[in-house]
Amino acid sequence: MSINFTNLDKTESFNQLLTTPLCSIKSELSPERIKKYSANAGAGLVYNFAGKKVNDNILELLQKLADEQQLVEKYKMILNGDVVNTGEKRMVLHHQTRGMKIDDVVADGQNITEFYAGEKQKAFEFAKKVHNKEILGSTGKPFDTVVQVGIGGSDLGPRAIYLALRNYAKPVMNAHFIANVDPDDANNILQHLDFETTLFVLVSKSGTTQETLTNQKFVIEKMNQANISGLNPLKHFISVTSATSPLASDSNYLSSFFIDDNIGGRFSSSSAVGACILSLSLGPEIFERFLNGAKEADKIALNTNIFENAALVDALIGVYENNILKMTNTAVIPYSESMTRFPAHLQQLDMESNGKSVNRFGEQVNYSTGPSIFGEPGTNSQHSFFQYIHQATSIIPVQFIGFRNPQIDADLEYQGSTSGKKLNANLVAQMTAMGLGKDDTNKNKNFAGERPTSLLHADKLTPEIMGAILAHFENKVMFQGFTWNINSFDQEGVQLGKVLANKVLNNEMDDILASYASIMI
Amino acid sequence: MSINFTNLDKTESFNQLLTTPLCSIKSELSPERIKKYSANAGAGLVYNFAGKKVNDNILELLQKLADEQQLVEKYKMILNGDVVNTGEKRMVLHHQTRGMKIDDVVADGQNITEFYAGEKQKAFEFAKKVHNKEILGSTGKPFDTVVQVGIGGSDLGPRAIYLALRNYAKPVMNAHFIANVDPDDANNILQHLDFETTLFVLVSKSGTTQETLTNQKFVIEKMNQANISGLNPLKHFISVTSATSPLASDSNYLSSFFIDDNIGGRFSSSSAVGACILSLSLGPEIFERFLNGAKEADKIALNTNIFENAALVDALIGVYENNILKMTNTAVIPYSESMTRFPAHLQQLDMESNGKSVNRFGEQVNYSTGPSIFGEPGTNSQHSFFQYIHQATSIIPVQFIGFRNPQIDADLEYQGSTSGKKLNANLVAQMTAMGLGKDDTNKNKNFAGERPTSLLHADKLTPEIMGAILAHFENKVMFQGFTWNINSFDQEGVQLGKVLANKVLNNEMDDILASYASIMI
Repeated sequence: MSINFTNLDKTESFNQLLTTPLCSIKSELSPERIKKYSANAGAGLVYNFAGKKVNDNILELLQKLADEQQLVEKYKMILNGDVVNTGEKRMVLHHQTRGMKIDDVVADGQNITEFYAGEKQKAFEFAKKVHNKEILGSTGKPFDTVVQVGIGGSDLGPRAIYLALRNYAKPVMNAHFIANVDPDDANNILQHLDFETTLFVLVSKSGTTQETLTNQKFVIEKMNQANISGLNPLKHFISVTSATSPLASDSNYLSSFFIDDNIGGRFSSSSAVGACILSLSLGPEIFERFLNGAKEADKIALNTNIFENAALVDALIGVYENNILKMTNTAVIPYSESMTRFPAHLQQLDMESNGKSVNRFGEQVNYSTGPSIFGEPGTNSQHSFFQYIHQATSIIPVQFIGFRNPQIDADLEYQGSTSGKKLNANLVAQMTAMGLGKDDTNKNKNFAGERPTSLLHADKLTPEIMGAILAHFENKVMFQGFTWNINSFDQEGVQLGKVLANKVLNNEMDDILASYASIMI
Repeated sequence: MSINFTNLDKTESFNQLLTTPLCSIKSELSPERIKKYSANAGAGLVYNFAGKKVNDNILELLQKLADEQQLVEKYKMILNGDVVNTGEKRMVLHHQTRGMKIDDVVADGQNITEFYAGEKQKAFEFAKKVHNKEILGSTGKPFDTVVQVGIGGSDLGPRAIYLALRNYAKPVMNAHFIANVDPDDANNILQHLDFETTLFVLVSKSGTTQETLTNQKFVIEKMNQANISGLNPLKHFISVTSATSPLASDSNYLSSFFIDDNIGGRFSSSSAVGACILSLSLGPEIFERFLNGAKEADKIALNTNIFENAALVDALIGVYENNILKMTNTAVIPYSESMTRFPAHLQQLDMESNGKSVNRFGEQVNYSTGPSIFGEPGTNSQHSFFQYIHQATSIIPVQFIGFRNPQIDADLEYQGSTSGKKLNANLVAQMTAMGLGKDDTNKNKNFAGERPTSLLHADKLTPEIMGAILAHFENKVMFQGFTWNINSFDQEGVQLGKVLANKVLNNEMDDILASYASIMI
């Protein structure tokens, strides 16, 4: 099949959608629809979109849009190792890190699929040796704590996953994360640590990330200041980096693990970036199960029928909301305290991938691209910004995530229901209220309804489900980028700030920069 | 002066703004402007708005809008104890909790100003007795840990403030927070506690909040299950509630502290809701300093000149961005890891207050009201969603917050600069990059600039500055609500969800609710 790259507004289906009558949730929501508008997301995860402002007519056109934009074919290009990240001339290989492939990807004589698998095994072996006390701290004590030193994709995804699974997995080692160059971040964490039993994971693909290298030196200096006899700071560090980075050649580290330029930071949770910290903290078995769940979701994403491909239909409805309904925000609300930092990961994943104004050929596009993403757990968010969702002048579609059972098997009943049941009663109440609203002659108490909602649901937040959720959103973002005809895999917009920050630090400021700097420095 | 309540689109100044030429940040940003576009926010906090898309012309009309909408006069109505929350027929008295007043507010023969001051003193005395070991746990051990059990305004503000100041204040007692009805939240915290030395603060104004009462019973049951000889759970609880609530009459608690209906949850951080947990954890002196800072900001907010009133000019520029420039989102980015949860507090404060579609008379408004708010600390956010801020198709104004010095005096130098200097170099670099952009013939590397930014800055994040920041945003939200002619102090939009959740729990579901419930319960 020949592949075409076409702007959204040049497609026939999009132009048909522009003139298709809108759907009313209030008119169309029914038990039948709640049953029918549901798609498999893999590993037991299911996506329900009955609360979306779409009907069979619109979905038919979205299916046509998927076909016209060859979304699944383009996903296969990624799996095949095509250079889909055209701006940076790179492949996009994060799926390979969980074993999702069509064939092994081989480039310049290297089997990259095997390379990733090998690094994962290395991470597993290393974690087992640490757990078995075969690898000890430099003063001879076993490690009981692990600290990830990294920022952006080296922080948000692994941190969100650790928090999501620590109650399920019962950590082998406690994990902490140092990301910000704000010295209060590192100091706050370091002051509670026993350096002799702490292992640091230094994560920087380029080996040049300013914040991360600064924090590494900060940690080393604090270890030296602690004046512990026999303590050798570098022997408490492993590095995760690319084979060509300055960090890779340093044999002073306890060990090094590798990724490569074909995995973007925000897609790196299933690579060595996540494998080291999560295997050390949660155990290799848990991380393997997480990868299996992600792979299951990746497989589902190959289906061309939107009713059988959760990531695809989620992506297309998102485009419809953005470009037809002009709703450019999305709230992600997990009814699970364990997923408290997952929305922050999604902010990076989605907004850094699809917050673009040019298509893959570098031409300005004439339509809105990626949504703005935020979220907090429910029910907390009900007592915070849900007033806005129900009654504000702007409409924000809500992506709910929920589980039938809690992770910790220690729930209690009060007034006839468990906490978990109350949690989920609130979740379904919110979905119903947002869609249907409620008329009241007192306009202050009136609910207009017609707020789009969807629900990703599973039986329990297990490692497999967490993997499937991660992959679902990665694949959704990928499909949306293809629909908009943009490159979701570069991030040129982060460069200018870095350049200007270095000008400040090197005292090469023009007058504006100097004026602002005089306030802050 | 007679007070008029007028919709924004009926004001002369707004209609003049609609036809006033836009400002170009690139053309107008200069060192002079950076110096001039700055307003005192109180207690050493300063608001710089040089990076906003406004010029002298536009600011003159915004001043006119402030005068026409009588914003400062309406603030004085609040201070005077007028029934400004018309929907619920309540006064709006959170300013009184930090001693900000014109005269004492007296209603039904009660001096409410003195009532709040008395409850604060009670909280201080209680905290001192706990710290001095005059008040002990039921098994005779001193308390070393305090846990707030509350949700929404009883959680977000106090939690954000605790995290913001714990590195500065060196906590007397460690604090934890249980908010979510998700049992994994309570279980995760309770499993690490020593019940004998833990004090719980139960916070519910109405005394009927489902999540909070459920969590209280959850805690008590877990304490009973622990089978500790002599442990009396209720003697490890204090309550913060209204004098008329079911909780207030229960003498089994260790003590009770009171607020009243004139303080909304999202404005309650400076009342007993914050006073108990923060005095216990950080000490009464720290909380008093926090209140003093808030009061200083409240005083500044009385100035009618927008160049001398940071909250007022911030509010008006926000309205301009929302209703003229059609930018309906705001990102709040503190370059301070300690403020990591402050954006979540602001989400509630702003979105629950001004996420409304009807004016104070219950009539539909024809313009956009409150913005959608989200944020994460910098520099972390640079490595996450700042790509979107710089290059997306939608423009999101950024509210930066920064401090010249870190809280913990233990910074280190690396490659010629401290971590703190690198942090702030990045902050000013981002402000410059967003405003000025950078032309590039490669459109993928082009930065259009014209992204509005502002900066709240101070020397250090002290208790006074945290108080001033809190009050700044409270007052900004208040001024915006008055500008839009809406009631910022009720939250009718949260009611429908509560009703439907109870229908689920009582098995009184209609078919839609039942269909959704069958998925989740």
